[in-house]
Amino acid sequence: MATRSARTDWTGSLNEGGGQVDLLSSRAGRFAVSFPRRTADDAAGVTSPEELIAAAHSSCYAMQLSALIAQAGGTPRALEVTADVTLRPDPAGGLAISGIALTVRGEVDGLDEAAFLAAAQSAKETCPVSKALTGTTITLDAALT
Amino acid sequence: MATRSARTDWTGSLNEGGGQVDLLSSRAGRFAVSFPRRTADDAAGVTSPEELIAAAHSSCYAMQLSALIAQAGGTPRALEVTADVTLRPDPAGGLAISGIALTVRGEVDGLDEAAFLAAAQSAKETCPVSKALTGTTITLDAALT
Repeated sequence: MATRSARTDWTGSLNEGGGQVDLLSSRAGRFAVSFPRRTADDAAGVTSPEELIAAAHSSCYAMQLSALIAQAGGTPRALEVTADVTLRPDPAGGLAISGIALTVRGEVDGLDEAAFLAAAQSAKETCPVSKALTGTTITLDAALT
Repeated sequence: MATRSARTDWTGSLNEGGGQVDLLSSRAGRFAVSFPRRTADDAAGVTSPEELIAAAHSSCYAMQLSALIAQAGGTPRALEVTADVTLRPDPAGGLAISGIALTVRGEVDGLDEAAFLAAAQSAKETCPVSKALTGTTITLDAALT
């Protein structure tokens, strides 16, 4: 149906090297990545695999929820979806994405809070990115504004 | 250890609405997303959840492989990693990320082809993004240049 591509050009070692990530399909952006910056307190200016997963998940979830709100008889006005992706030491070795916290605030016509929460929960289960990310734990905090 | 965040602000319906994705932690970028453009033949100018997953996976894989090459006694000079992410109708309903194809070309000192291929395969199994993406199928095409 659709294939989308990105490329990372990496030079050097894990700790002293660095990379450039290119959004190949859209040509919408090119970003620096670095392992020390990936886990640093200060993320300013340098993206990371975790931030890019957060971008993918929040955008996929927003689309799925807009569809499910309409399916439930409502009209989606505005959805603000934040994804917080946490990288931690993996008890099995190396690092792991230990969790993704989704937070959604919705401005919706024609659905009460319970119907919105049901759609929000269903979107968490059924958006394509959620269905691919079964190796981590996804949590959801949803409310109407 | 590290949490990275992104936000999508979505307005309107799935097919007529659209969103803006913000890389919140790095402030490195803000992108338009749209459902019709997500699955269109022409992706120019508009990113998508799949392209962002490709960016996350290629950058995570490149870091992991640079580490594993050094662990095997080699020196990583340059790694070019492409991820192609395919979205398809899901037999179980809706859409699904049916596969992610990783392609890596490596310029490496001190490892023969077999040792490089072993590191490349291991990086596919152990990079944090691969470990999170257990709900899809990841394939790997690896070679020294």
